[in-house]
Amino acid sequence: MNFLKNAWYAAGWPDELNDGKLVGRRFLNEPVVMFRKSDGTVAAMGDRCPHRFAPLHLGRHVGDGVQCGYHGLEFGADGRCMRNPHGGGTLPNASVPTYPLAEKHGVLWIWMGDATKADESLISDSFAFVADEKRAHIKGYLHIEANYMLLVDNLMDLSHGLYLHAGSLSNRDMQDNFELKTRVEGDVISSEREQPNIEPPAIWVPALPPEAARIDYFSYNEWQKPSNVIHPVGCRRVGKPEGVDGGVSSRSAHMFTPETDTSSHYFYSNSRDYGVDSQEADARIRKMLATAFGGEDKPMIEAQQKMVGNVDLMALRPVILPSDKPAVMVRRRLAQLIAEEQRNASSEAA
Amino acid sequence: MNFLKNAWYAAGWPDELNDGKLVGRRFLNEPVVMFRKSDGTVAAMGDRCPHRFAPLHLGRHVGDGVQCGYHGLEFGADGRCMRNPHGGGTLPNASVPTYPLAEKHGVLWIWMGDATKADESLISDSFAFVADEKRAHIKGYLHIEANYMLLVDNLMDLSHGLYLHAGSLSNRDMQDNFELKTRVEGDVISSEREQPNIEPPAIWVPALPPEAARIDYFSYNEWQKPSNVIHPVGCRRVGKPEGVDGGVSSRSAHMFTPETDTSSHYFYSNSRDYGVDSQEADARIRKMLATAFGGEDKPMIEAQQKMVGNVDLMALRPVILPSDKPAVMVRRRLAQLIAEEQRNASSEAA
Amino acid sequence: MNFLKNAWYAAGWPDELNDGKLVGRRFLNEPVVMFRKSDGTVAAMGDRCPHRFAPLHLGRHVGDGVQCGYHGLEFGADGRCMRNPHGGGTLPNASVPTYPLAEKHGVLWIWMGDATKADESLISDSFAFVADEKRAHIKGYLHIEANYMLLVDNLMDLSHGLYLHAGSLSNRDMQDNFELKTRVEGDVISSEREQPNIEPPAIWVPALPPEAARIDYFSYNEWQKPSNVIHPVGCRRVGKPEGVDGGVSSRSAHMFTPETDTSSHYFYSNSRDYGVDSQEADARIRKMLATAFGGEDKPMIEAQQKMVGNVDLMALRPVILPSDKPAVMVRRRLAQLIAEEQRNASSEAA
Ligand code: FES
Ligand code: FES
Ligand code: FES
Repeated sequence: MNFLKNAWYAAGWPDELNDGKLVGRRFLNEPVVMFRKSDGTVAAMGDRCPHRFAPLHLGRHVGDGVQCGYHGLEFGADGRCMRNPHGGGTLPNASVPTYPLAEKHGVLWIWMGDATKADESLISDSFAFVADEKRAHIKGYLHIEANYMLLVDNLMDLSHGLYLHAGSLSNRDMQDNFELKTRVEGDVISSEREQPNIEPPAIWVPALPPEAARIDYFSYNEWQKPSNVIHPVGCRRVGKPEGVDGGVSSRSAHMFTPETDTSSHYFYSNSRDYGVDSQEADARIRKMLATAFGGEDKPMIEAQQKMVGNVDLMALRPVILPSDKPAVMVRRRLAQLIAEEQRNASSEAA
Repeated sequence: MNFLKNAWYAAGWPDELNDGKLVGRRFLNEPVVMFRKSDGTVAAMGDRCPHRFAPLHLGRHVGDGVQCGYHGLEFGADGRCMRNPHGGGTLPNASVPTYPLAEKHGVLWIWMGDATKADESLISDSFAFVADEKRAHIKGYLHIEANYMLLVDNLMDLSHGLYLHAGSLSNRDMQDNFELKTRVEGDVISSEREQPNIEPPAIWVPALPPEAARIDYFSYNEWQKPSNVIHPVGCRRVGKPEGVDGGVSSRSAHMFTPETDTSSHYFYSNSRDYGVDSQEADARIRKMLATAFGGEDKPMIEAQQKMVGNVDLMALRPVILPSDKPAVMVRRRLAQLIAEEQRNASSEAA
Repeated sequence: MNFLKNAWYAAGWPDELNDGKLVGRRFLNEPVVMFRKSDGTVAAMGDRCPHRFAPLHLGRHVGDGVQCGYHGLEFGADGRCMRNPHGGGTLPNASVPTYPLAEKHGVLWIWMGDATKADESLISDSFAFVADEKRAHIKGYLHIEANYMLLVDNLMDLSHGLYLHAGSLSNRDMQDNFELKTRVEGDVISSEREQPNIEPPAIWVPALPPEAARIDYFSYNEWQKPSNVIHPVGCRRVGKPEGVDGGVSSRSAHMFTPETDTSSHYFYSNSRDYGVDSQEADARIRKMLATAFGGEDKPMIEAQQKMVGNVDLMALRPVILPSDKPAVMVRRRLAQLIAEEQRNASSEAA
């Protein structure tokens, strides 16, 4: 499987590294251990001890590094062995790879490619809302037994909501006038859907004023390379701008990171600017997301992966529908980026 | 693995398709979804949506077809896309394969080969007893992690009952005078065993009159291609014909259908003409079958499959005993039928 | 994977074969069934019936042999078919391989190679303590999803105790003055560690006299080919010989037997000469061993196996530390023994 290597992938949530915790996770087929240093910054390195290949995350966080839990070699955040308790302190010629790890916009981001190219400004400020303290946030994680692109496809084709999430996130009214507008700006690919003057889907009813029997529905999607999607969705009062007279919306980040060729990390963060202090809304939304993503998307996508097997979905020549346009554009653009990266890598090597 | 393609295989029980249910099952390595149409007839088609390869059985039964649960494409019983909710209703050039599915003698039968050859009259009337309303029926299903031919072997070699089912279906008396007669009529291969004047096995005692301390035992088997076995078994009063003076017997259909090369569907139906309204007999027999098939046959055959591994049993050169004769004849005849089918297919293709 | 074939491997505990029990276990990739004969001696043979390849251990122990549980063929301890209930008693030309199985020093030992070379005197009397009635014994078994050599490595590198078992089997005091002496005598490779005048590790405190605030610690290891390790460990009163004035120690046998290339049987027996009748000590030690071996070694070694994958650990060029010396010497010697055995086998075949 080809992955875009020179890119920031979501790796976790900042608070996972509190209290000296080591987090071991596999990204792009590589085992990684993450931790927080004493200066508060975060670090990531290979999770495989060069001595006997024990996973370092089974060890302990010592000083600004990690002590292997098997025989005690210690590795600093630079990946070099900083203490060898055997043989009088002589340092073995031993090290583990390191990976740039950034903490930005409330997310941990990892760079699995050429570290000299890892520029934190490449992490789009479109994700700033994830850390916006004026908003309420519900975060979650799902482990998915499917290639990460099946997850990107899922979200870039908003039409799936009408069927897979029928009755909760969507309703019958929506099925009839479904149309997507697609927009490309640089490497950002967006799809937009407007459904004016329809009944609000069940999930929005509790948040709307009781008199809002019909609303202008909108649902946008914005692909951020390599494999993340920002999803604003909500209800405007008919004919009114967003947020006016009790119109409500949410903005979510869906961050998909390849674990292996056929498994993925799915980090999601849903945020809203209404009922920010409502614990009732928190509970309702947490439950809704667990049902929609964990109970509807996950089983469907994992079943799809089993049907597809270990081949690339596109090699099976799927039927392409108009609603696939954004997903197909994303796959095409990502394939270009990967091809470019590999061309550059081999010309640099030459 | 070679399978006989042009043949009727048991696919399920008719009542599994009631109430608009979709049943997804794999046969001969192919994923299939089955359902009942509004006219009451049954239909089967490929379970893999041509859009993004979601399993169709995760969708909904609509009209006389299936709506994919992922993005709502609808497929009629002819396998053609009959509704595309995306792109203004234009039907994409999309379809799934269809498979002849018959409902006959209380069983669903599927034909995975050339549909033009699927003639329902090829389903033997020997199975008519499965739907005989004058008899009492206990039906069951087991999923078996073993090649289907290990299941056919199991049943065609009745001697296994003396050891694997010792104490329940058989007794010590039976081990000493065990002999099988083998008979071939067309494509039906039968084995017959008679053990006159022995003690009845434990399982038959509750059904016999108390004075029947010894009985004439009989146990027959009839292989019906491709992989089904009809099994009449019972006790006659000594020297009397079947059913006279309290003699009792049952007649079972054992239907084995390949799921993959190393897993199978096992449908069984046990029927009797005595105590037809006895719920006590129902409960006793249901429990006995679950123990014998699920608790004795299944673990043994699955352990056998693990020992054999991913090779053909015959390639390991098993020792052949006289009691193997019916099973070996069945394997030989089936191999001939498969070879003929493949010869015909390639000459038709030429 | 190459294994030393002509060698005695631990196969189980003698009392596992009481009461006519059949024990089925895989050794060096071969399925084996073990049982005890009427004369009290033990026997082992192939666990795969030559008829239809049912595992014989699912059958019954009859006379001095095994009756297959599927169709009743009986095999004597010489592996030959001694009863065929089918076909009028004619014996089929059927047999299973046999393996020398010895009961010595309280352990069952199996020889998977050339039976003519299986000499019980090759089982070292160093294991005699396992059956010493003057000592108290705690025995255990763990199934490990890792190559057996990772288990030998684990124990031959005693430094792992300082980190993996920190707080229980070892303490901080020990980490600073850790040094191993290595000794080779014939095919026995030993490592010795002495740590005079340190605080006793937590696990030893309850067994020592209260005034023993500091002790002379010792921990030895002795590799016995092919893959067993004898491990004496304990605390001497400072400056005193072993066992004097309340000094205490234990002696353990760790016996690792390959099941497959990536799974192992781990038999252990811990014995002590203090508090021999103390049930409190029994319970404490049993719990400690379950924690240390099952809760600390097992997860680490299985995680290591996953990191290593299906290649030989040495092919990954691990960093070698001074503390690896005994483990590396063992691997080297074992590789020599395997190479010699294979050379001899091919010259005998020529
Ligand atoms: S495996 Fe890490 S120090 Fe030995
Ligand atoms: S996968 Fe079936 S409609 Fe998309
Ligand atoms: S498999 Fe052992 S007797 Fe048939």
